[in-house]
Amino acid sequence: MRFHGHPVFPRGFRCASRNCGLKPSGKDLALFVSDVEANAAAVFTQNHFPGAPIILGRQTIGSGGGRLRAIVANSKVSNVATGQAGMESARRMAAAAAAEVGTTPDRVLVSSTGVIGVRLPIELIEHGLRGMTRDLQSDPLVGAEGIMTTDTHPKALSVTVGDATVTWVAKGSGMIEPNMATMLAYIFTDAEIDAPTLDRLLREAVHVSFNMLSVDSDTSTSDTCAILANGLAGAVDITAFGDALTAGCLRVTEILARDGEGAQHLIRAIVRRAANDDEARRVAKSLVNSPLVKTMVQGADPNVGRLLMAVGKCVDCTVRAESTDAWINGHPVVAGGQRLDFDDAVVRATLAAEEVDLEVSLGVGDAAATAYGCDLTKGYIEENAAYYSS
Amino acid sequence: MRFHGHPVFPRGFRCASRNCGLKPSGKDLALFVSDVEANAAAVFTQNHFPGAPIILGRQTIGSGGGRLRAIVANSKVSNVATGQAGMESARRMAAAAAAEVGTTPDRVLVSSTGVIGVRLPIELIEHGLRGMTRDLQSDPLVGAEGIMTTDTHPKALSVTVGDATVTWVAKGSGMIEPNMATMLAYIFTDAEIDAPTLDRLLREAVHVSFNMLSVDSDTSTSDTCAILANGLAGAVDITAFGDALTAGCLRVTEILARDGEGAQHLIRAIVRRAANDDEARRVAKSLVNSPLVKTMVQGADPNVGRLLMAVGKCVDCTVRAESTDAWINGHPVVAGGQRLDFDDAVVRATLAAEEVDLEVSLGVGDAAATAYGCDLTKGYIEENAAYYSS
Repeated sequence: MRFHGHPVFPRGFRCASRNCGLKPSGKDLALFVSDVEANAAAVFTQNHFPGAPIILGRQTIGSGGGRLRAIVANSKVSNVATGQAGMESARRMAAAAAAEVGTTPDRVLVSSTGVIGVRLPIELIEHGLRGMTRDLQSDPLVGAEGIMTTDTHPKALSVTVGDATVTWVAKGSGMIEPNMATMLAYIFTDAEIDAPTLDRLLREAVHVSFNMLSVDSDTSTSDTCAILANGLAGAVDITAFGDALTAGCLRVTEILARDGEGAQHLIRAIVRRAANDDEARRVAKSLVNSPLVKTMVQGADPNVGRLLMAVGKCVDCTVRAESTDAWINGHPVVAGGQRLDFDDAVVRATLAAEEVDLEVSLGVGDAAATAYGCDLTKGYIEENAAYYSS
Repeated sequence: MRFHGHPVFPRGFRCASRNCGLKPSGKDLALFVSDVEANAAAVFTQNHFPGAPIILGRQTIGSGGGRLRAIVANSKVSNVATGQAGMESARRMAAAAAAEVGTTPDRVLVSSTGVIGVRLPIELIEHGLRGMTRDLQSDPLVGAEGIMTTDTHPKALSVTVGDATVTWVAKGSGMIEPNMATMLAYIFTDAEIDAPTLDRLLREAVHVSFNMLSVDSDTSTSDTCAILANGLAGAVDITAFGDALTAGCLRVTEILARDGEGAQHLIRAIVRRAANDDEARRVAKSLVNSPLVKTMVQGADPNVGRLLMAVGKCVDCTVRAESTDAWINGHPVVAGGQRLDFDDAVVRATLAAEEVDLEVSLGVGDAAATAYGCDLTKGYIEENAAYYSS
């Protein structure tokens, strides 16, 4: 397994992006195409108000995986809370992309992100898709540009596993909590893997990566993570592939957390010796979601009390003060539930780094989990209080 | 039941506050005294890292209520995560107050709020308590001043029930989530009520008020709500008293929410027709805790999508898009899960008001709940990123 310096597409994948008029300027439409049909799997938001593209996508992929030729995605309008008209628009978007690519609508996955509750200007998208295959090219970052919303940069990543390549194209920066983020992550590979295996490997990777990512504890209505395997590189070692898939998802998770709205720091909350996996995950999430922990990182203040508070407020988890230890960037700050007499200036200085590790050992079991988040800044308030929904 | 224009103490209660040197200036020590022993009940934080005063307070009050003559409270240092030395300090604080008041330490409730993990300067408090009974006077706001931390004003409230008076003295503005807030609320009454009844009435009132209050989803390690009934006004109608207790707790809840750190708006999230009480409470909490809903109120933007997102992310609750309706300040904005074509400018204008009602009917049952919170502003970040723990 080897990460590439610059992302490249696996064999047989290309993409294009353009402005189709949803935004005044800037790209707002992206198309990803595989030259041949690919096995596919996907996980979608668990929000009770899924967008029309999510409802359609669940039919397209089916449970346990399906087949795809293309992904079409727009930004600016999410096509959520738009009723039957929204479903019709999502279907028209799949049909328009299928016609352009030369396949059937059930081989196209549709994504929309942006404002909720606004009618999707489907005519602009249909018009924009016309002739778009002529723009298909081999740089994944071009596709990443087409799906950006409040992201500050396009996000793509590639890794080599045996003869195959795996490439991530992702976006997301706010309304990001687990299960999943307001997040689109498309994963392309030329490895030959059947759909049920893809589905299993994807769920395993997402469980420890995107589902442990939280920018603001808010879960979007449009989250989608899909993987396409077109088989052009032949078979691969499945264990190695699964490891690479998880490693790449973790790296993309950190890239997304670091680009959280207004964020200046990536926060990793590492919980060890928890009673079980579920409790380890909940305590880790409690740490990255606590506004007081997030502002403590923003203020570079080693405020041990806020760490204990955020652990202790998980009232349904097994937490014993006397067995709780904690570290900030590797420096011991709590032992047996009591604040240690650490060198404040030294720990404070480490909090200036771009990456901050908050580590807690609960001392009650063997389970561990890591959650990923970012600090809370005035920039977050600015972006989200100024955001105009209509 | 009648609320007073200015808070007064019930018969037999007085208070004093002063600076004992914990803060460079400003009051940091408060003493509340009943002339005669009072029946008492209390609820404390559920955080796994309760401060020493909480551990001691649970012993003092006992389960099902107890007896109290006085409450002593300091601000600046919370005496949390301080181990056996912290317990010893809490005991010395009770003993010093008892000596000053002329009672035994087991008749004194101790509270400390402020920085976590720092040794309590108990000598300063012991010295400060000496002679403090000479300052006892009848204005509850004087006691309220002594327990303020980041509060912008002292908080007290009185109500008349029959011949009795009920008076609240409270503080709290950040690290406020339910179960309870970083919050101290002391309730004094001259009504004659036995301790088990007090305990029951207090729990009923707290369930719908302080436990539905959330400034930032963070639960403090020091939260305490105690009620003292000294009986000097004789018996009262228990139902009327319970109603007044709940009404006053609700009003204090709104006062605390409105003074949340950096807050400019009080947010009431009203959920109706939920499947059951627990789900109604969870959805209401999800609304007041969502950073995107909070910043939407801050930005005065009727962003219906964020409301639906915050309802829909309660993945374990019964939510059906097609039966979900919503209102912003009484204006219908969602029907059957779809955004209505409302007059944006009109709804936007109502969001400028100091109080904002976000109402959701889930259409799946008969349960209802209201949660109380505030908007998220740059002021919150400023206060909490600048806060220096040491």
